[in-house]
Amino acid sequence: MNYPNGIKKELTTKNITYKNRGMTLEEDLNQTNQYYIDNDIAYIYKKPTPIKVVKAEYNKNGYRVIKEAYYSEPSTTDYNGIYKGCYIDYEAKETKNKSYFPLANIHEHQIKHIRHIDKEKGICFLIIRFTTLNKTYLLPSKYFLDYIDNNKKSSIPLSYIDEYGYLIKEKYVKRVDYLEIVDKVWRLS
Amino acid sequence: MNYPNGIKKELTTKNITYKNRGMTLEEDLNQTNQYYIDNDIAYIYKKPTPIKVVKAEYNKNGYRVIKEAYYSEPSTTDYNGIYKGCYIDYEAKETKNKSYFPLANIHEHQIKHIRHIDKEKGICFLIIRFTTLNKTYLLPSKYFLDYIDNNKKSSIPLSYIDEYGYLIKEKYVKRVDYLEIVDKVWRLS
Repeated sequence: MNYPNGIKKELTTKNITYKNRGMTLEEDLNQTNQYYIDNDIAYIYKKPTPIKVVKAEYNKNGYRVIKEAYYSEPSTTDYNGIYKGCYIDYEAKETKNKSYFPLANIHEHQIKHIRHIDKEKGICFLIIRFTTLNKTYLLPSKYFLDYIDNNKKSSIPLSYIDEYGYLIKEKYVKRVDYLEIVDKVWRLS
Repeated sequence: MNYPNGIKKELTTKNITYKNRGMTLEEDLNQTNQYYIDNDIAYIYKKPTPIKVVKAEYNKNGYRVIKEAYYSEPSTTDYNGIYKGCYIDYEAKETKNKSYFPLANIHEHQIKHIRHIDKEKGICFLIIRFTTLNKTYLLPSKYFLDYIDNNKKSSIPLSYIDEYGYLIKEKYVKRVDYLEIVDKVWRLS
């Protein structure tokens, strides 16, 4: 079919944008979690980013406007919620690195939190995306803690994550369908 | 015993300050939750307040400073975590009112969230403090939802909360020891 130039160009751009839209892991997880919520599968939310407000005032419309504030370090992981009656908790991180995941990405407080949840028998894991390789893994807390407790290294090699973690298949709507992996690993019926 | 005047006065002031220190419910809950964490009893955190950042820039020290931001409405309850392997979730509210709890305090999104968690068999409740009466109640989600589903009212009477809820005793360190109630109501061993 012959389209006027403008429209054709628009369609092409749309397709390209869709195929390579390069959503961040956070965007993919938000979309996936929304799918889970909309379909009554799980109620898992990203916690708001902790912000320390220093100065706030009321504007002329009576709204409180924050005029000075700073990002502060999270004391827990970013995501938690409930799935099949179980407590679920995870941290999600991206790296451009091709052969290892730098541990500087996970704060000391977060490691402590993961240790607590693991001990309490919560379902706990990391979701790690190697953006350059276009691979997203789920690494259960047990194997994450095993690694950091037995290795004095500043990173986890991809080979370890590939051996003890699980590759998450990319899908269309459920972009990062990690609950499929959770069902298998934690044997939830 | 005879104390020099200064010390005696200090002690007295301290006692008065302690008795009437008027901590907010949020402060009491933070202290209680910290006690639970420090003693490996439960890992329950208040979620950060959701803030929508409009403008942020780097200052001369290389820190990101937020210059314009607004408070936004929470989509879930404020507190969640894990206790004895169970998912736990609650909202905490204070009212100066002496005879009812105004429902305008709980957003539509939060009610929806409470409904979800209740259906998923998570441990879910409200903590409601009547500041003027100095009484703090735990109202299980079941009775909260029963009330709002069967009454077209804008508030819950204290008499209802007193009948179906549980008064939380005020303690010294565990200021609002709500897990004592949770153990009883949800029969956790």
